[in-house]
Amino acid sequence: MSVTAAKGFTAAGIAAGIKSNGNPDLALVVNTGPRRAAAGVFTSNRVKAAPVVWSQQVLADGELTAVVLNSGGANACTGPKGFQDTHATAEKVAEVLSGQGTEVGAGEVAVASTGLIGVLLPMDKLLPGVETAAAELSEHGGEKAAIAIKTTDTVHKTAVVTKDGWTVGGMAKGAGMLAPGLATMLVVLTTDADVDAKGLDAALRSATRLTFDRVDSDGCMSTNDTVLLLASGAAGVTPEQDEFAEAVRAVCDDLARQLIGDAEGASKDIRIEVINAASEDDAVEVGRSIARNNLLKCAIHGEDPNWGRVLSAIGTTQAAFEPDRLNVAINGVWVCRNGSVGEDRDLVDMRYREVVVTADLAAGTESAVIWANDLTADYVHENSAYSS
Amino acid sequence: MSVTAAKGFTAAGIAAGIKSNGNPDLALVVNTGPRRAAAGVFTSNRVKAAPVVWSQQVLADGELTAVVLNSGGANACTGPKGFQDTHATAEKVAEVLSGQGTEVGAGEVAVASTGLIGVLLPMDKLLPGVETAAAELSEHGGEKAAIAIKTTDTVHKTAVVTKDGWTVGGMAKGAGMLAPGLATMLVVLTTDADVDAKGLDAALRSATRLTFDRVDSDGCMSTNDTVLLLASGAAGVTPEQDEFAEAVRAVCDDLARQLIGDAEGASKDIRIEVINAASEDDAVEVGRSIARNNLLKCAIHGEDPNWGRVLSAIGTTQAAFEPDRLNVAINGVWVCRNGSVGEDRDLVDMRYREVVVTADLAAGTESAVIWANDLTADYVHENSAYSS
Repeated sequence: MSVTAAKGFTAAGIAAGIKSNGNPDLALVVNTGPRRAAAGVFTSNRVKAAPVVWSQQVLADGELTAVVLNSGGANACTGPKGFQDTHATAEKVAEVLSGQGTEVGAGEVAVASTGLIGVLLPMDKLLPGVETAAAELSEHGGEKAAIAIKTTDTVHKTAVVTKDGWTVGGMAKGAGMLAPGLATMLVVLTTDADVDAKGLDAALRSATRLTFDRVDSDGCMSTNDTVLLLASGAAGVTPEQDEFAEAVRAVCDDLARQLIGDAEGASKDIRIEVINAASEDDAVEVGRSIARNNLLKCAIHGEDPNWGRVLSAIGTTQAAFEPDRLNVAINGVWVCRNGSVGEDRDLVDMRYREVVVTADLAAGTESAVIWANDLTADYVHENSAYSS
Repeated sequence: MSVTAAKGFTAAGIAAGIKSNGNPDLALVVNTGPRRAAAGVFTSNRVKAAPVVWSQQVLADGELTAVVLNSGGANACTGPKGFQDTHATAEKVAEVLSGQGTEVGAGEVAVASTGLIGVLLPMDKLLPGVETAAAELSEHGGEKAAIAIKTTDTVHKTAVVTKDGWTVGGMAKGAGMLAPGLATMLVVLTTDADVDAKGLDAALRSATRLTFDRVDSDGCMSTNDTVLLLASGAAGVTPEQDEFAEAVRAVCDDLARQLIGDAEGASKDIRIEVINAASEDDAVEVGRSIARNNLLKCAIHGEDPNWGRVLSAIGTTQAAFEPDRLNVAINGVWVCRNGSVGEDRDLVDMRYREVVVTADLAAGTESAVIWANDLTADYVHENSAYSS
């Protein structure tokens, strides 16, 4: 499963000592070929961590041989030294892999980091850790790699889709910046399909736009978000682009849903469906505004079908709608009709973890789904105390 | 003090029975002249409560004789019946005041409401309450009026500035939508200066832009926000516009600071100073982004000088800045210099209620101050449970 479900990849996950508690904290994923095509999407935050800047550069030629990932430190806001550390990490991976018989340059190695912002990584532990990880590389190492990138994730997250002779698999950690400062969504996807960098990029961008980009657990954007897709071509099959893109989307959707389900401090997963919007952009804007309304997030935590807070969130957007035509359902009960009181709110059953908020803009035919979490005292506790 | 500090105004605050706990819930403010000039600013939420729609209409001619305010119900998202109720309330005020000897039309009466969204007001209690309030109108009624508009405010809020022969005073309740669904900022300001509607409007808009508009307690915009300024002309003095505007700004500033200081569930008042911005708009955009970052709000609650969360919030804006030139101080300690680690974070003392976050964009000479609160478990509890 995970990043080694597809043929042509090895992986490892080890404890390098970056985390003081001794948990696994270093993962290595290697594409053994025959192809090396790759694509990536990164945080749109203008304050980018050193590994994000590095990985964007090495991906410019559409090829990657390896990805090294660490938890236990984000290497963000760490100045020139932080960038040198990322570079040194990639050099070390290249050196060790070259020593194993494949000639690899640092420019073929992406780096991803997650953890506290503003702290330099312990390179005296990380670099020896790269040697240990390389020695443990295995076609069965995907699970261990997924475990090593966890921060406050309670479970590791993997997904796989197998099609006719080819496979897309992957691993993920985190959810937006919901995890307490230990931040960040890191995702590595692999496939043995023979797809070039352009095809990978198109598939990855269309998939992330509809999946990871629509997870809005706590409205906070990380400095380190990284999603990579590597193709080995080992299956010797080139699928139709549409079919390939759909498989990538399915894996991303599965992983995104797992991120929301494990969001720290959360007691509810909120599926926000915006329907009958004039445009998809309108639907996304309204969905995000609802997703980020702290009062609504508190109400859902309290199992209170407070549709007034949905309307007040919609009202802050620029989307096309008339206030007196808005309809809102919570778990299928239309508690707001035509901008006013609808069905009896006592009919709404909110006992289960998943809560569906449907906002009908009555302005067109477009729609979008945004996933969010509730706001809980646990979220406050975990995010107010982690660094002390 | 309050709305009766200026000459030419009477006020009252009574318990009409709108609130089930029997607390005061109805306030009446009357301009006894000789002038009737008035101005108002209202929520920019596109989902507007009935009293907001009404009051915007009656203010179109720049005159008001009275303002009737109720707590215990927002009369928002209540459809045509809600608007009829607002209209009937204004009619009742006009009728009762006319019975006292001054001919008043409903079109001279503004209405403001605060409380739960989506619930009709109990008109059988509200209308008799108007009669009771009118009977108690007094030149000393300002405090009682300020008390009657409280929802979950722990204290009533008033302010006054007295200049050479004229006065500006006022009352306020709430803070954004921070109070648990009981929502909303309502403010009535009065002056005995002789200023026409145009002068009032200019003074009020410039004042609110720099005061109430820069309070961002919880990022949630109400459907009911209303700020009114009424001038009686009873002092017989027409001050210079600049001097008058400055007095209005001072009163608004005082009230805005009181709102933040009483924000529900909050344990910290956060003064966010954005300096050296390329434009004031940039400074405000950055200030709001910092003010709305839940992770930072949690960190400040935990007295954790987590500057990485400030940088990640700045990075989501479109403001002009270079990431490696950003500086951040918390309570005067420059914990981030040039986008990286600065002074020792252990030097930051965050024991007191007021916390100052200074963000230096190093991109110009403009600045802005935004006030926010921390995010606490109390906020979650109060906002997840109020309607159950």
